Amino acid sequence: MRLGQILGSRSEPDDDAASMTTRPADVGILAMECYFPKRVLAQTALEEQDGCAGKYVTGLGQTALAFFDDREDVASIMLTALKRLLDNYGISPADVGRLEVGTETLIDKSKSVKTTLLAELFGENADVEGVTSTNACYGGTAALFNSVAWVESSAWDGRYAIVVCGDIAVYAPGPARPTGGGGAVAMLIGPDAPLALSGARATHAVEVYDFYKPSGATEYATVDGKLSQNAYLTAVDKCWALLKAKRGKAAALDEFGYVCMHSPYNKLVQKGFARLLLGDFLAGADAAEFGGEAVQKYRDATAASLVSDRDAEKVFVGLSAERFKAKCSPSDTISRQVGNCYTGALYMNLLSLVSNVGAALEGQEVLLFSYGSGAVATAFSVRCRAPAAANAKGGAEPFSLARIGAAADAVARLAARTPADLATFNGAMDMRAAVYGKSDWEPAGATADLLPGTYYLVKVDDQYRRTYARA
Amino acid sequence: MRLGQILGSRSEPDDDAASMTTRPADVGILAMECYFPKRVLAQTALEEQDGCAGKYVTGLGQTALAFFDDREDVASIMLTALKRLLDNYGISPADVGRLEVGTETLIDKSKSVKTTLLAELFGENADVEGVTSTNACYGGTAALFNSVAWVESSAWDGRYAIVVCGDIAVYAPGPARPTGGGGAVAMLIGPDAPLALSGARATHAVEVYDFYKPSGATEYATVDGKLSQNAYLTAVDKCWALLKAKRGKAAALDEFGYVCMHSPYNKLVQKGFARLLLGDFLAGADAAEFGGEAVQKYRDATAASLVSDRDAEKVFVGLSAERFKAKCSPSDTISRQVGNCYTGALYMNLLSLVSNVGAALEGQEVLLFSYGSGAVATAFSVRCRAPAAANAKGGAEPFSLARIGAAADAVARLAARTPADLATFNGAMDMRAAVYGKSDWEPAGATADLLPGTYYLVKVDDQYRRTYARA
Repeated sequence: MRLGQILGSRSEPDDDAASMTTRPADVGILAMECYFPKRVLAQTALEEQDGCAGKYVTGLGQTALAFFDDREDVASIMLTALKRLLDNYGISPADVGRLEVGTETLIDKSKSVKTTLLAELFGENADVEGVTSTNACYGGTAALFNSVAWVESSAWDGRYAIVVCGDIAVYAPGPARPTGGGGAVAMLIGPDAPLALSGARATHAVEVYDFYKPSGATEYATVDGKLSQNAYLTAVDKCWALLKAKRGKAAALDEFGYVCMHSPYNKLVQKGFARLLLGDFLAGADAAEFGGEAVQKYRDATAASLVSDRDAEKVFVGLSAERFKAKCSPSDTISRQVGNCYTGALYMNLLSLVSNVGAALEGQEVLLFSYGSGAVATAFSVRCRAPAAANAKGGAEPFSLARIGAAADAVARLAARTPADLATFNGAMDMRAAVYGKSDWEPAGATADLLPGTYYLVKVDDQYRRTYARA
Repeated sequence: MRLGQILGSRSEPDDDAASMTTRPADVGILAMECYFPKRVLAQTALEEQDGCAGKYVTGLGQTALAFFDDREDVASIMLTALKRLLDNYGISPADVGRLEVGTETLIDKSKSVKTTLLAELFGENADVEGVTSTNACYGGTAALFNSVAWVESSAWDGRYAIVVCGDIAVYAPGPARPTGGGGAVAMLIGPDAPLALSGARATHAVEVYDFYKPSGATEYATVDGKLSQNAYLTAVDKCWALLKAKRGKAAALDEFGYVCMHSPYNKLVQKGFARLLLGDFLAGADAAEFGGEAVQKYRDATAASLVSDRDAEKVFVGLSAERFKAKCSPSDTISRQVGNCYTGALYMNLLSLVSNVGAALEGQEVLLFSYGSGAVATAFSVRCRAPAAANAKGGAEPFSLARIGAAADAVARLAARTPADLATFNGAMDMRAAVYGKSDWEPAGATADLLPGTYYLVKVDDQYRRTYARA
């Protein structure tokens, strides 16, 4: 008798027994790598230019932002991150059966950069599923969910999946420009993972024009800043309330050792984190920690009524400040110094966390909140664990929390960057804008400004075809 | 003892027994609906305009093409298809946990139209995963694979998934314009499906600039016609050879009762179908059916060497003609009369097949070939089956082959369309081009030209926000 029959499954009798009816366990992230560029601009330089001391460093909570001139595009930054993942973990492209991309930095309305990555890095292996997932900053999470589901599905053939997500975040001159940044993250997906996706997920998907890119004439987004902030905070409220309901009545923020949230800028993450505690309060206002008139006066409020209430924001940001420092700050190392990486942002945060805490994460559950304007948001969790067995193909060194943390080495990498001045930054922004959407050009940016091993754009020909090389 | 432990799974002890470790069986397409517009242009009218009698009807194998003026966009045609699916099959949006879109008709580089669909049709249900998958015409297949994997994954919560794929295919005036068309398909995904995805899949993903959309200034693609045809045929060769290898030595075309192939235009489908028989020949040239000098002279050739060999093409198109008529023609009803639907094309073909053959498909395996320029292609199969149990939620009428075929009613729907003249068609193309990429406009197209129940664009405001209504 076949296992499928024992289980009462309706699989065909000629199915391949257990492999067809049971899923691999603890599927998630086996390994991670990232790329952010060599050059960095201090937010104080932008404050000086804009005559608003403290507005970006204190107001946004950002210390610096990464930037790219016309020498790099979304394909080149993904190539760099993916190459690092393959090289630093000794992964053979032949062992990869899926490569999925998450991005909102589209250089083509039809063609996925996935095949560009294959062409440069995968040699003869063309039997690789996966395309581009797009919904603003949520594309990386969609790609991750899809890849994990593929490994758990009957279509899985035992090979790894890889997710690459990243963006170049640039804004028109003005108040949004300091919220730019950019970089890419590459993640290896498979069973028995040190960062295993687990448990319930809660999604909040609604129609909102908070941040979008309808114009083919510019790389810059159309943004309604106030609406975007409210949409993000509302999505935190909705996802958190739903996740609590799915996990059961006792579910609360303190079940999670750490929290990683999508990070447009750090101050919004602080506000978003405070909404988690607000959610706990509204679900159980009598808990001792919520004592005092300042908090109790909101006990009959709804989350929605408080989404743009400055006083409530102050109260709950204050009340959650210590928890924020303990649970969330360990994940903001890269994002505060690199800026928004859009689809890559949440995974830069997870990588920061593993880089900062390493093997000590073992046994912890991490809450993740992914948000993409438009809007789709999901709250989900990963369990940090020691793999049960040899989880790398061919007897290679097993993937572990310690290994991910050591490879990321976030603090040292950030410190090794080169500070740029304002003129260099503005010049890079102007270079990008000058060639946007054009055919038949060669980048003006100097390859000397790139880290060794960085892929870069060589030219865009008269048919818009792009070619790349490596520094 | 938990089932997960019996199976030696590494699931957590508090996991929910069988549902966490075993996959649902026979996951695939439960129901399908489509939308193509009321107005249609005969290819003979384009031949007359272009002074090339026979070139499009005989040369391309197309009889007519669907077209849209500025009154419809990709969101509106998807709304119409999705609304038909929900209404005609009595599906409650509350029972849907995933909605994924496949398209290459992007009206925004960041925002997915998925949330527009939710806003119009899903009411209070915002807990819906899924975004947009993009890789030219392959996006619908990527969305289908992702949704099937979600149902098979541990993240599945028992609800349906829905895939909506479709495009508006328009080309600059000239030789590519007759290969336009458009429409959308909506598919309900779940277990115990009448069209169950099964068995091996073979993918061929390579970097090629055959068809792409790099310019933000136009809706029209950049196309290298010859390269695109060769890339398509090469992908057939590669996917078929790999699928044969994965299925085992005896695998051959005749294992499949029917074949559905991505359909840019019917003549290319005929050529692609012939490559399947060529693949069988190259793997076993001594079979009786391959007798005769005309065929045998290719016995030592490679598929690659014959990809643009006109003589070999003639020989194998001839040799496969009867099989084409029996196995493939039943799936080309809609595509020959509607034109290319890009991401929706393959699924219009599958729907044509079910509409034409209905319950008689039971027990058959159908070979599907999906191709998206850039390029990613996959050969895979569905098993046509009678559901084992009540497969609709809440005891509703079960989903079956007969029900899909009756709902599609392809022949009657095509016949009920309104023929348009050349001036109307060219006027519609001009209307679309005039507003492409612009903000602050209202469509000029008459709503009287729409079928009852069709969604349409009301306006694009000064912030590019789109609003819709229903005819």
